[in-house]
Amino acid sequence: MVTIDEFKNIDIRIGKVLEASPHETARNPMYVLKVDFGSEIGERTIVAGIRDRYAKGEIEGRKIACVVNLEPKSVAGVISNGMILAAESGETLSLLVPDREIDQGSRVH
Amino acid sequence: MVTIDEFKNIDIRIGKVLEASPHETARNPMYVLKVDFGSEIGERTIVAGIRDRYAKGEIEGRKIACVVNLEPKSVAGVISNGMILAAESGETLSLLVPDREIDQGSRVH
Repeated sequence: MVTIDEFKNIDIRIGKVLEASPHETARNPMYVLKVDFGSEIGERTIVAGIRDRYAKGEIEGRKIACVVNLEPKSVAGVISNGMILAAESGETLSLLVPDREIDQGSRVH
Repeated sequence: MVTIDEFKNIDIRIGKVLEASPHETARNPMYVLKVDFGSEIGERTIVAGIRDRYAKGEIEGRKIACVVNLEPKSVAGVISNGMILAAESGETLSLLVPDREIDQGSRVH
């Protein structure tokens, strides 16, 4: 169980994926994403291990949900400053996305 | 800032909305949702203040992302056992949904 305050500490925002490049040195199939979170947060680099599930063209330009207040973390030499949210079941991976057009930077609560 | 463990404590799942009924006694426009989270978690009642933004037919049958490990909470006399996730910006509200078909009960991470 968690409290509502523990949930509210997690800053989840809608970001727009500007670019998805293959992570050149990671052993697993990862992207280095450039994600725009609007004027307050700006652009972030986020490493995401979804390159075997989503083609570049399926993710570039999309608006997706990301956690933006985790400590930055090095992933095979690239600093990731956020984490995408995805649902997983067996072999299926599915990004979490807003179901209506909404500005990047919008907060999820 | 939060740690990855603090994030992992939050149990976010994909649920399928079986039914959306108006909350009869709440002052604000709320739904009482019946949401199916699959065999492990089962069916939950979740109160959601989105009745002025989403028509019944827009939400029934949808798969949506919800936090499922919050303490149950009484909302104007109805016990809500979970919370839907939505992004908000000005007047726009947008539910968070999986962008590919995936089983209810799938965990978000």
